[in-house]
Amino acid sequence: MNITKPTLLLDEKKCKDNIKNMISRANRFNCNLRPHFKTHQSIVVGNWFQDLGVSQCAVSSLEMAKYFFNAGWTDITVAFPLNILEHTTANDLARKIKLNLCVESLETVKALNDFLEHPVGIFLKIDAGYHRTGLEAENYAEIEAILEALESNQLITIKGFLQHAGHTYGAHGKKEIDEIHAFTSEKMINLKDHFIKKYPDIIISNGDTPTCSVSENFEHIDEMRPGNFVFFDVMQAEIGSCNYENIAVAMACPVVAKHAGRNEVIIYGGAVHFSKDRIEKDGKTIYGLIAEEKEKGWGNPISGWYVKKLSQEHGTIHIPDEDFDQIKIGDLLYILPIHSCLTANLMSKYYTLEGEEIEMFRYLS
Amino acid sequence: MNITKPTLLLDEKKCKDNIKNMISRANRFNCNLRPHFKTHQSIVVGNWFQDLGVSQCAVSSLEMAKYFFNAGWTDITVAFPLNILEHTTANDLARKIKLNLCVESLETVKALNDFLEHPVGIFLKIDAGYHRTGLEAENYAEIEAILEALESNQLITIKGFLQHAGHTYGAHGKKEIDEIHAFTSEKMINLKDHFIKKYPDIIISNGDTPTCSVSENFEHIDEMRPGNFVFFDVMQAEIGSCNYENIAVAMACPVVAKHAGRNEVIIYGGAVHFSKDRIEKDGKTIYGLIAEEKEKGWGNPISGWYVKKLSQEHGTIHIPDEDFDQIKIGDLLYILPIHSCLTANLMSKYYTLEGEEIEMFRYLS
Repeated sequence: MNITKPTLLLDEKKCKDNIKNMISRANRFNCNLRPHFKTHQSIVVGNWFQDLGVSQCAVSSLEMAKYFFNAGWTDITVAFPLNILEHTTANDLARKIKLNLCVESLETVKALNDFLEHPVGIFLKIDAGYHRTGLEAENYAEIEAILEALESNQLITIKGFLQHAGHTYGAHGKKEIDEIHAFTSEKMINLKDHFIKKYPDIIISNGDTPTCSVSENFEHIDEMRPGNFVFFDVMQAEIGSCNYENIAVAMACPVVAKHAGRNEVIIYGGAVHFSKDRIEKDGKTIYGLIAEEKEKGWGNPISGWYVKKLSQEHGTIHIPDEDFDQIKIGDLLYILPIHSCLTANLMSKYYTLEGEEIEMFRYLS
Repeated sequence: MNITKPTLLLDEKKCKDNIKNMISRANRFNCNLRPHFKTHQSIVVGNWFQDLGVSQCAVSSLEMAKYFFNAGWTDITVAFPLNILEHTTANDLARKIKLNLCVESLETVKALNDFLEHPVGIFLKIDAGYHRTGLEAENYAEIEAILEALESNQLITIKGFLQHAGHTYGAHGKKEIDEIHAFTSEKMINLKDHFIKKYPDIIISNGDTPTCSVSENFEHIDEMRPGNFVFFDVMQAEIGSCNYENIAVAMACPVVAKHAGRNEVIIYGGAVHFSKDRIEKDGKTIYGLIAEEKEKGWGNPISGWYVKKLSQEHGTIHIPDEDFDQIKIGDLLYILPIHSCLTANLMSKYYTLEGEEIEMFRYLS
């Protein structure tokens, strides 16, 4: 493949290994796997899951649900607080597929009861500690009121309680991930126990790649919805969800300028390609790491090299003295993204190492 | 217009006023205006410039140059260090239009001399203090060597010296912007003076919206290439490049959840819509401001309201106690972006206040 501009490469083998590994973990824990597709947003990658027996998925918008419905997915959870303004799309999908939606207030449920024309499954979005959104896991009174408002609607099947432990993204290593997992799981299990008599079919659905990737105790957790694991990224490797060898995407970016005096190389590759997520490490702000080039694909990060700045199309790479002279204008550098979800979303297509082009969902079609 | 999901609105009048204002400034300073189109990336907005007599533009990639060539633009500067891997596109455009490219090393010039088949204009990218990329403005020896290497090629017209004073993005108010402008202008003028005898046609081309928007002294500056001014954004208003009334784009985002206890509202609108640029103000990290809704369009930012967090699709808005109860699920909030270039790039289309859809360049087509 002749790469001349910033290009998102997908290592199909690493990606399929990530998928297989998560499937076998879910099986081992006797936990239903409903992978979140917002990371890859691609029919082709979705098919890789299907080929391995996965038939349910989660998405982050009704539009993305439509996209995967058109690709043959008929059991989809929109793991985002219901946007009542999209009632037409919601009804249209509810008519065609097994659609699960998330609610977290009576206000939303009232609107839902007003517009709903076809059967849907409803999860209550629960806040088990991340504090982004969702109902407080201990707020039984409000949760009960919402359950009753849902129950009154014959079109609604109450699915259970859904949470995303996004605070694992601040964790360092398995021990901290496990602590968060134990903490949130206990809240979710107590919640389910409280309502199971009245609603015997309710389940617990947990998200987040770190816990699903490394934690070992999923007793009483009925479903997992990890998404990022399909590719992983620098952030996940630093959290401890994966090793650097597991990262299945990298951006190939051309070197366009060199500044030996300050150990900087400028690549064609910036915020419009990577987005602007970053990590702090050893007192440095890092927007990406540079992987060694292999005959096919890429290897591990090169020690001491990192993306230190991103503007719209410029990327500034720090390269130590001892390595600097090997860099030539026109070289391609292989950048491991900090956050693969946002990078994939911006690039909107992948190329496998065999040069095959893989199309993605066009956000906001 | 029936808005049901995150939608990028463009106030055509504010945008055209921004364009007119910059044209009259350029005329007043007797300075050629070559607007940078990487902010709007749109043929329609480009035509608004053309209707007002602008016939030259700058872009940030050869692909974007191709896009505007297809829309009838025939005098384009790619204000980015030449990516030698795209020599085919460069030659193809050089054959068809007045194409200006930027170089900043002998290494790039050697490659250019090897592949160039059609006439081009060449700017030397100069670092006048921003220290992102470009040749040190005082490095006359290297600059001279590059000029001579360019001169040897009959297909090349040496255009002059191009710089982008990106460090004005750290400025606060006109005084600081003017100081940076004076500092960089002096370097550029000295540089031109040094080489003008040998190269009588060389010009100085300056970028950056803050100086072009507020500074008054453009004596000896031949060309300005501002881009962001066409829309402006929160960052520019905070720098002092514009007033909040001048911001010509806003994102309409639906409210999907409320958390009165912590004064937070969740919108459907996240990093995949806004990107993740931010400012620090009064000890807060701010990812966007919320403008008051008007019968048509939006007004000024609402005091005390701001976007405090962005994840992939979730936006977390802080709303003070006294205002909180007015918010309803399904309301639309009008968010002024921190960095309109990155937001526009992600949204990939605009809607005018009259509901007219305006298509954009698809980055990485």
